[in-house]
Order: sequence, then C-alpha cells, then structure tokens
Amino acid sequence: MILEIEDRKTKQLPRGLMHANVFRAPGEFGLEEKVIPHAGPGEAVIQVRLTTICGTDIHIVRGEYSVKSGLTIGHEAVGIIHELGPGVHGYRIGQRVMTGAITPCGTCEACLSGGLSQCGGPLGGWKLGNTIDGTQAGYVLIPHAQANLAIVPDELADEQVLLLSDIASTGFAAAERGHIKLGDTVAVFAQGPIGLCATLGARLLGASQIIAVDPDPARLRVAASFGATSTLSPAPDLADQIRALTGGRGVDTAIEALGTQETFENALRSLRPGGTLSSVGVYHGDLNLPVDAVGAGLADHTIVTTLCPGGKERMQRLMRLVTAHRIDLTPLLTHVFELEDIRRAYELFSSRAKGVLKIAIKVS
Amino acid sequence: MILEIEDRKTKQLPRGLMHANVFRAPGEFGLEEKVIPHAGPGEAVIQVRLTTICGTDIHIVRGEYSVKSGLTIGHEAVGIIHELGPGVHGYRIGQRVMTGAITPCGTCEACLSGGLSQCGGPLGGWKLGNTIDGTQAGYVLIPHAQANLAIVPDELADEQVLLLSDIASTGFAAAERGHIKLGDTVAVFAQGPIGLCATLGARLLGASQIIAVDPDPARLRVAASFGATSTLSPAPDLADQIRALTGGRGVDTAIEALGTQETFENALRSLRPGGTLSSVGVYHGDLNLPVDAVGAGLADHTIVTTLCPGGKERMQRLMRLVTAHRIDLTPLLTHVFELEDIRRAYELFSSRAKGVLKIAIKVS
Amino acid sequence: MILEIEDRKTKQLPRGLMHANVFRAPGEFGLEEKVIPHAGPGEAVIQVRLTTICGTDIHIVRGEYSVKSGLTIGHEAVGIIHELGPGVHGYRIGQRVMTGAITPCGTCEACLSGGLSQCGGPLGGWKLGNTIDGTQAGYVLIPHAQANLAIVPDELADEQVLLLSDIASTGFAAAERGHIKLGDTVAVFAQGPIGLCATLGARLLGASQIIAVDPDPARLRVAASFGATSTLSPAPDLADQIRALTGGRGVDTAIEALGTQETFENALRSLRPGGTLSSVGVYHGDLNLPVDAVGAGLADHTIVTTLCPGGKERMQRLMRLVTAHRIDLTPLLTHVFELEDIRRAYELFSSRAKGVLKIAIKVS
Amino acid sequence: MILEIEDRKTKQLPRGLMHANVFRAPGEFGLEEKVIPHAGPGEAVIQVRLTTICGTDIHIVRGEYSVKSGLTIGHEAVGIIHELGPGVHGYRIGQRVMTGAITPCGTCEACLSGGLSQCGGPLGGWKLGNTIDGTQAGYVLIPHAQANLAIVPDELADEQVLLLSDIASTGFAAAERGHIKLGDTVAVFAQGPIGLCATLGARLLGASQIIAVDPDPARLRVAASFGATSTLSPAPDLADQIRALTGGRGVDTAIEALGTQETFENALRSLRPGGTLSSVGVYHGDLNLPVDAVGAGLADHTIVTTLCPGGKERMQRLMRLVTAHRIDLTPLLTHVFELEDIRRAYELFSSRAKGVLKIAIKVS
Repeated sequence: MILEIEDRKTKQLPRGLMHANVFRAPGEFGLEEKVIPHAGPGEAVIQVRLTTICGTDIHIVRGEYSVKSGLTIGHEAVGIIHELGPGVHGYRIGQRVMTGAITPCGTCEACLSGGLSQCGGPLGGWKLGNTIDGTQAGYVLIPHAQANLAIVPDELADEQVLLLSDIASTGFAAAERGHIKLGDTVAVFAQGPIGLCATLGARLLGASQIIAVDPDPARLRVAASFGATSTLSPAPDLADQIRALTGGRGVDTAIEALGTQETFENALRSLRPGGTLSSVGVYHGDLNLPVDAVGAGLADHTIVTTLCPGGKERMQRLMRLVTAHRIDLTPLLTHVFELEDIRRAYELFSSRAKGVLKIAIKVS
Repeated sequence: MILEIEDRKTKQLPRGLMHANVFRAPGEFGLEEKVIPHAGPGEAVIQVRLTTICGTDIHIVRGEYSVKSGLTIGHEAVGIIHELGPGVHGYRIGQRVMTGAITPCGTCEACLSGGLSQCGGPLGGWKLGNTIDGTQAGYVLIPHAQANLAIVPDELADEQVLLLSDIASTGFAAAERGHIKLGDTVAVFAQGPIGLCATLGARLLGASQIIAVDPDPARLRVAASFGATSTLSPAPDLADQIRALTGGRGVDTAIEALGTQETFENALRSLRPGGTLSSVGVYHGDLNLPVDAVGAGLADHTIVTTLCPGGKERMQRLMRLVTAHRIDLTPLLTHVFELEDIRRAYELFSSRAKGVLKIAIKVS
Repeated sequence: MILEIEDRKTKQLPRGLMHANVFRAPGEFGLEEKVIPHAGPGEAVIQVRLTTICGTDIHIVRGEYSVKSGLTIGHEAVGIIHELGPGVHGYRIGQRVMTGAITPCGTCEACLSGGLSQCGGPLGGWKLGNTIDGTQAGYVLIPHAQANLAIVPDELADEQVLLLSDIASTGFAAAERGHIKLGDTVAVFAQGPIGLCATLGARLLGASQIIAVDPDPARLRVAASFGATSTLSPAPDLADQIRALTGGRGVDTAIEALGTQETFENALRSLRPGGTLSSVGVYHGDLNLPVDAVGAGLADHTIVTTLCPGGKERMQRLMRLVTAHRIDLTPLLTHVFELEDIRRAYELFSSRAKGVLKIAIKVS
Repeated sequence: MILEIEDRKTKQLPRGLMHANVFRAPGEFGLEEKVIPHAGPGEAVIQVRLTTICGTDIHIVRGEYSVKSGLTIGHEAVGIIHELGPGVHGYRIGQRVMTGAITPCGTCEACLSGGLSQCGGPLGGWKLGNTIDGTQAGYVLIPHAQANLAIVPDELADEQVLLLSDIASTGFAAAERGHIKLGDTVAVFAQGPIGLCATLGARLLGASQIIAVDPDPARLRVAASFGATSTLSPAPDLADQIRALTGGRGVDTAIEALGTQETFENALRSLRPGGTLSSVGVYHGDLNLPVDAVGAGLADHTIVTTLCPGGKERMQRLMRLVTAHRIDLTPLLTHVFELEDIRRAYELFSSRAKGVLKIAIKVS
C-alpha cells in the first residue's frame, strides 16, 4: 500500500532527507539518503510521484555509459512542484507537472535555433541522471524550470503521461524526422518501447503500410496493436522481404530503433531511392555503410539521427494527444514497483523476462 | 439491374457512340450521344465504370463557372483502359485504373518543380470537364496518360477509390498544406465532403484536438466519426468559442473548406499567432482581411490556398491508405444513380436533401 | 564632439540619472531625465552607445501606434554591459553587445516551438519601446538577457551592426520566409530601409532576377547597388510590366515592404501560380484580396506575414555575414545625430528629406 | 577553325553518319562512325555544338564504372534541335537548347513526387552516356524531350551554360540540400569542379563563413574567387582547424565533394551537433561512420546524398542565374578541344596537368 510506504518513509527519513537511486560504480547502485535539493534562480524542485527505468539507465549501472559516482539516476518524472526558485513565473507550489528527459535552457544559440536537445553543446540537453541528479528519488531539481515544467491536466493520470517524457517523445521523433508523407510506407526495425512508439508515430503521421520488425512475437503483437500492418522477424533476406511487401519499391522511410549495425544496414537496404533512414538507436560501435547500399552515394538518401526532443512545449503538445484520446501508452507499462524496490525493478527490466516493456516506479 | 441497362445501351447506341452528360447553356445540360474518343500520342481512353458529381459541376450547369457549350462534364473516374496511344508504356488494355481530377503533364516547368496542379499555367492541371471532355460519359480520353493512369489494386472496389480523385485529395491537401505538427490543434470550417476529408486528413496527420464547424448536425455527426474531437455550429462568437476550447491559444491550423468571407474570416480569427490558414474553398467574391485579424501584418501568419493535387503518384499513394485500412470513404457515398438518371442525381445533389453527401454514378 | 557631450552630460546629470527620449502624448515627446534601471533576475542593463529611429517610432510619436505615456521609445541598441542580474551567465560587465528589436524569453511555448517573435502572445516578442522602456536613452534594461545579449566581435564597428537589430533582420526575413529557391525571380515592393534589406536578402538567398519597385529614383539606385537587377516605378500596369520582365511567368516570390493595399495587391498580381507573397509591411487598414488575383482560391498561393525575428542567435548569425564581408549596411546610415538632438533627427526622418534612409543616434 | 572542321566532316562523313566517342572495353575507346539517331515518340535529336568530359567518363573508359560496349560516352550538351518526335510540342527545328546530364521522364512515380534523378528506379535519371548513347558525338537522341529540352537565351554563349548540365547542378545541389540558413557556416571538402560549384552554391545561398579544403593551392585560389572565406589544405587535425575557425562551434553544413572515406569522415567531424553533411561524392568503397563522430547516434545529424538534379525546369532556372550575372562558370573551362581530338582531351583531363579544371569539347 502506497500510504503505508509513505507513512514508513515519513518515519524513517529525517526531515530534509529523501531516498535516491544512486550510481556508485559499475554494477554498484541502489537507494541512499540524500538531502532534498533547493531551487536556485531559474530552478524548481519537484516531489516525484512516478518515474521509470530507461534502457540508458541499464547502461549506466553496468558502467557502459559513464556518469560520475554518486549521481542519482533517472530522467523521467511526474510530480508535484515543491519549490520554485527566483525568476520562475506562472507556476505555484503543489501543481502537478511533468518534465521531458531532455531539459533545454531555451536561451543558448542551439536552443534559439530549434536545436533544444543539443542545448549548450553535444547532447547538452540531457542533464537529468546524466550530468545532474536525476528522477529516481523523492525529489528532483529541475534546471531551466521556466522552459521545462509542463503542467499535467487534471483529467490525466500520472501513468498516462509518464512515458511521454522519453520513449514516446523519442519514438515519435523518429517518425517526425523521417519525412513521412501521407500514405507513405514505413519499416521500423526493433520493437522495444522506443520502436513501438516509432510504429505508433508512423501511424499518427499518416503512413499507410507500416512494417514492424522484431524477433519477439509478443512485441510484434503489441506492434500490430500500435499500427503495424505487417510484422516480420529478422532474417538474412529481411530487406528483400520488405522490398517484396512494398511491390519492389522499398520503403519511403526506414526507422532504426535499436542501435546495431545489423538493424541500421537492414534499414538502409530496405529504403527506396530518395528515401529517409531515421535513426534513434544508441550505437556502441562504428557504423558501416556498404557502398552498394548507398548507391555509391548517388541514391538521394537522407539519414537522420535524433536525440529525444524535450522542453515543456513538446510535453504539452504530446499530452494533448493523450487528452484527445489519440494515443494510450499505458499498455507499455507492464509492471509497477515502489521506489524501495527499484533494484528488483532493474533486475526485471534488464532480464526482459515476464513480457516486461516499461516499469512504473511509484515514489510518493 | 446494371446488366439490363448495359444491354439496353448496347441496343440503343450505334457502334462507336456513347452517352455523355453535356453542358449546353446555363441551366441546360443532359445526356447526349457522342463519338467514343480515340487516343493520340501520349493519350489513353478509359471506359468509365464509376464517376461522381462535384460541387463544381453544379456551378458549371448553373453557368456560374464558364465552360464551352458542348463540353462533357465530370472530372472523377474509375474505369477500364480501352485504348492506349503511341508512347504510353507499362499499361495494357483491360486494366482497371482511376485518374485524379487534375491530370498534369509532368513535363512542363510547373510540373517539374512540383506544381502539378498549375500545369502549364493558372489552374492548368484541371482539364477534365473543364477544358476537355470529362468523365460523365461512357468513355473518356485521358491526356498525359503516362502521368495519370493509376492502376487500382484488385482488392479494392470502385467505390473505395472513386473519391480519392478529387474530394479526398483536396481535403487531405488542406491538412497537408496546413503545417500540422504532431499534437497540433486544428479547426475545420464547413463539413461538406471536402471539409469532412480535411477533418479526416487532420486526424491522419497527427492533430490532437480537431474542431469541426458546420450548421448541419448530420454532417457534424459524420465529422465526429471522421476524427473531430469537438463540433460547433456557426455563431457570432465562433472564434471566441474556438479560442476557449484551445485554452485561449487559438488553433495552430485553421482550414477553410467552403469559400465564403465568413468562414475565411472565422478561420483567420481562430488562429494563434504564427498559425496557418489553409484554404481549399472556391471563392466567388473578393476576400477581406480585417487589419486586426492579421495583427496589422505582424502575426507571423501563413495563408495557403490549394487546388486539388493530381497525378498517378498521388492517386497510388492515397490508394495505399485504403489498402492499409487507414481510411474508408464509402460512408460519403450516400446515393447511387445510373448515368441514364444523371439529371435526377444533379437535382438531389443540388438540393442537399436526404442527407446526400456524394453520389456515385454507375456508367458500365 | 562626443567627448564634450559626455562631459556635459556628466556635469548635467545627477548620479544615477540618464537622458531618455520619452513619449508623453500624441505629438509630444522628447528628452527627459530618468533613473538608470537596475537588473533583476535574468535581466541586464546596457549603457547605450548607438541606437536609431524606426518608422514605427514615428507612428508612436504621432499617436498612430499606442504606447503608454512616459515610455522611453526605441528598440535598437549597441552598447556596453553595465549590470547583469542574477541568473545571467557567460557575460561580464563592460562587454560590447547588441540586441535585437525583438527580445524573446526563449522559454514560453511559442519560443520553444520556434515562434520567438510571438513570445508569450501576439507580437509579444516586441517589448523594447513598446511595452517596456526602450533604447533611445543612456541606459536600457534588457529582459531575458540570456536569450538576447549578442556579443559584438571586436573587429566590427557599432555602425556595422546597428541595423541588424531590426530592419536587416526584418528585410532578410521577408526573403527567408518567401521560399526563394536558387535561381528564382523576386519582386520587392517599396525600397525603404526594410525593402532595401529585402532586396539584399533576396540576393543573399540566390535569387536570379530581382525587380525592385519604388517611386523614388534615389532609393532605386540604392536598390540596384543592393542587388536589384531591374527597377520600376509604380504604375497602373505595374503587375503587367513585372509579368513581361519575367517572360510572362510572374515572379516566384513577391515581397511587400510598405503596408498598403496598393503594394499588397500589386505583389499578389505579380505572382506566378504557386508563388509566395511575403509581407513585412505594417498595415493600417483592412486588406482586400481580389477574387481574380487569388485565382478564386485555387492558385496554390502562399501568403506569409512576418514580424522581425530576434534573439541573440539571430543577431550572431547576421553579424557573421558582416564579418564575412557578405553584407555592408552602412550605406543605409545616411545621417548621424547625438541623443541630445534626437528631436531634430525625428524631424528629418519623418520628412524623408535630404536622401535620409536611416539615422544613427550616438548616445555615449 | 570550326568552319573548316565542319567542312571537313561534311566531306569525310557519308550522309546520315556522325562521329561518336565510343566505349569499347576498359582502356579502349575513341571516335567511331555511327548512324545519326532518329527521334521516336516523345524524343528529340540534337546536333551537338558543345560538350565536355566528366570525372565519371574517366571511370567509364577505365572500366571502373560499367557500361555496355559500343556506348557513346558523355552526358552534357548544348546544341541545335535537329529532329522532334511525335508528341513533342512547343519547340522547333533549329532552336538552340541544352539538356541536363539527368534526363527524367517527369511521369513516373519517382518523378511525380519530385525525385527526378531516381526516375524509374535507382539512378534511373542518368541515361545519357550510361544506359543510352551520350553526347560526345555529332548528334544525340534526347529521351523524354518534353521534360528535358531547355531553350538557351540568345544572349548566352554555349560556354556560359555548358557546365550547368552537370557539375553546377550537382555542386549547387550539394549546397541546396545542406539546409544552409542565412549566415550559416559551411565547409566544402575537395575543390574539384563540383566542389568549386558547391563553394559557389554555398555563397549563393547566403552562407557567411565558407571554408574550402583541397591540397591544390591553385584550386584553392579559384575557391577563394568563388566565395570561400578561408582555405585549408588537408591535415591530420583538419577537423580541429575547422572547429577553431568557427569559434569551437563546428560548421552548420559540411559538403563532401570527392567520394573518399577521408573527406567524408572529416566532413562528419567538422559538423556541429544538429548540422548537415551533404555528400555529392561518388564512393568506390564502404563508408565507415566512427561512433564518436556520430555522437553514438544522438547528435541530431542529417546526412544527405545527392545525384545531379536535371530536367528542363532546373536548367532554365540555373540559366537565369547566368543571365542575371549572378554566376560565371567560364573560368572553370580551362581548355578547349575539338571532338576529333577527344582522346587527347581525356589524357589531359585524367592527368590533372596544366591546371585543367574542365575541358570544352567543340563538336560543330
């Protein structure tokens, strides 16, 4: 029972302290007590109600993506405004808000020209759980609060908006950046949470045929419910199969949502001349572009890579899709854990067992 | 029974002749016998199976839009290839095809820069039933056949693709030209057949809130089934109502689908700063842009007008939406008439009685 | 002599006070003493070195554009950072900076989606000399300093960058928003300072034929030096003349830079089907769109209106054009006055006498 | 003397025959007598006046790019209309025309959606000297003549328009596809004829800083005259040098104009987050994208490859730039040969000796 836990936390934690899921060293992480942060100029502190675990967090705790020891992990949050720093206007304590995984300043050169995710420099928009303490904690400090606090409409539950923060914003962006015209054909490679959102995004943007690829039949079933019109398992002749499904044309847009050479190359080989490869996978090694797959550089291809878009305008716009009943992401929340049990949640999420897609972490 | 009629026609019509619905003078039109056309270089002749009546045809028979006496009316067709002229490749006699209302050449300066509808000059893409004989006939000559014959997949019925030719292509284009971003809000002014397709188009392109406006409750019900999330009747404070529905912001995109000062002005007044007014209405008088409604020219507005896009690529892409079960336009086909009864069909369509939206005209 | 004036000002003005050009009532304005402003959180105060008078300022002092009594006029400034409020990072006192006429916050919904000029609401980006004290003063408070202070490279003189603030940013935007493709033809209606910058902008963006229109032969000569390939005086058959110059096609892009029905309508009539009318004029009455000039709404036209783009990224990007010797706006600065003589400067600027285009106002 | 040569050819060649530069086998090519082609439906025959040799032609004669034995080489032409096939309208025998290297049909799905270069399938727009007889001949058959015959204005010499056909259209496209905003910074890797045109294209589109890279000081001097603001020789720390030149930002757009791993990788490493790599090089091996250079797929990069755009609209638009004195490509025509001496021209062009950039081949 949540109330019990809150009661317990109230008893256990000295005033001014909170629990936080902290990275210590590769393989070493877990709940610690930390001081509740305070909001400086332009900042806010949110009491976290709901957060989640991202694939990137798994890379962090394994030491595959490097962050400093002692950092609180996590970059998605729905919560209550606890404190507003000087210069933050138009909000009040107690309001329910969410923030994107990416928290741009809005005022640097990159932001002012629309490059919010590259705020201040390469990947600079990603701060929470990367360069500053993150959201898997009782409270989290939100930088550039004016640009990032998105008020959640009363009619929406926390669970309905949580995944907009990262995977939906990323997966949809894969489709948005893919130059999908009304009636275009799309193939989406890998149907993890982000790939599933890319499939949904392609549907939202007016694709006709949407071919979802994944080795897991369960995920392909979710893909079909999210808009895929065909589903395929990886195979040596995957690109040929896709080409056949499109009457020999190749797809207009291929979306890579895993981060491997195999999926990237299959995406490239499935593309029609003049098509777009939209990549949102995180790569851990060099990519090879076979000369024949790029038509010797003469195929009029476009390849785009995209980091999750953030900022409150993005979040509010995506919330409008939920309010209008255009999307329902709650089927992706297959499991729920309390913050106290977050290590078990990491284990389950890492294992990919029990049909897990995303885990909601209840904090308060 | 269609077969009876065909039988009758076979008896009645001397070899080489066909029936055609011909404009004679304002208020004067009807079936006449005409010689079946022959295909010159680059042309094709289609035996028409299904056509329809457009609002423009009503203007033509009333003399409100001027065409030459003796012209066969009509610009939508699904039919069978009857003859292929020299230089038309990749087709064969007997194939079922459809064509867009707009039949661009593909090879003039306008076409080569993507302006297919303005082929060769102002409105030049619109030839059928405007500058050359149209589709309300047993046979129709299709100019620039290579650019315009779109093969209909076997699994689709004539009725499923007929409306792609004009109203769906136009209505969808209203949305496509409206710069709708994922999650944007849209208002569509008038829910005639084109407005309904614009509503559907806004939904297909990822709008969240879609506000449909029309005085007819029956049409608003269809609008709701096509994706409208709110429906409104025209009222003096319509723009205020829309602004209120969008939390004071105004809509991101306003679509005008009637062609009157009132709808145009309401569209303009409903728009947020920086928003887009996408107009597909046909206007019969000057338009007035009130200085306050355009923010004295400083509101960063975009106003676009659009003529129906055509060409076979457009038609094939839209047919893919039908094949993929993304759209079903058959609810718009409220009535069916034989070509022999086309005058009665015009009467019904003009009257807007009996819930008529679009009428399928069976030819063969 | 500037030093004398500074000396005089030092003597005359009690510590903490400054001179400011203040609007009192229609027809009533002039220098007053005001307290030097202080920078709150997120703000900065600049000691103004150079400012200018804009056509809008003339409307303000005449009472044709309404601002509150007591407001300091002016929205362009090059100066020295005098004070930085809490939360403004990356700058230091004494740096030379400039700001755009438009000073967006960067963090509201409009700004985060790229609509910087409509920051917070209609025309909301325009604050200086409109809703808060402006730049025709010894010092000016800059709101949202983090988003708006653009450091001026040492190698550039104040005079080289002053006009980027408003007229160049606006005039260039007229071209940028006009969808000019490489080799396109452009007509620019009116060759005041903004129109001249639009002409230059069209050239910068790769137009081929650029037709400049103005009744003033002197301005047409400047237009030719800024890139116009033909120059025309207004005439009843102006649109026909332009059409003839383009081989009957009409221009791809028509830019309106005055704000009158006549120029707007001529722009519209000069346009090819599918072309873009880009308007940066400020209108004082309703606009009429003749039904034939818009092809009954079927001409695939685009009409865009644009408010001056601002923000430091814009300013820095435009300054790079000066640094790279791509543009030189100093020929537009036909006259120089001291702040003490600003009423005489207003008189000259209003009169359009002596070939005046823009007047630099030296403050310190 | 050209007249003498024509006289000689008239004597030497039996009626109905012409000279053509024919590929026989790798390393084996030269002038042969061929029958003058005849124009079928939709085709035209041009009497060639001026053509040139392209880098691709060198690959062909060396056997590095495979074409069928007996093919006439060459894909650029300025000439006189000699014959018009049925269905070609709006032209007359004797008119001077040019055609693009790419001759799209205008009527296939790819063309109708704007993908003219991929007409009918991968690289399908490139026909002349690739899949059908090319332009290094007395006469050449132009397929899809209606879409490809661009009339040359009388005031332009053959030499002024010849290079628009391929290298200018390609080099400019490198810039056009690079998302260059007004004032952006651009680096162009390799200053061969296409790279030089890309440099010029970046200038035409409003770039500020343009950094040209090439090992050849002579080509860098031409680059400076074409708009480069800095010139660099390749060096191990090239990307760092470019980053330093842009104040640490990296360039907004990097253009690859050679087709090697080294230039591609340097282009990628010079790019700011969110920047665009526009590639027009022809690659002869796989491309490697280092994981750090693509920011693990999270840098919001765009990579585009482009085949030369063609079609008469493109050619006419580019010719307008010459007519308007915006560009002068004749400095690239460093040498002139008669068709009779074409083998010597190939030798010189292959050797890159004597400062050769492009060679004009006079045919008639």
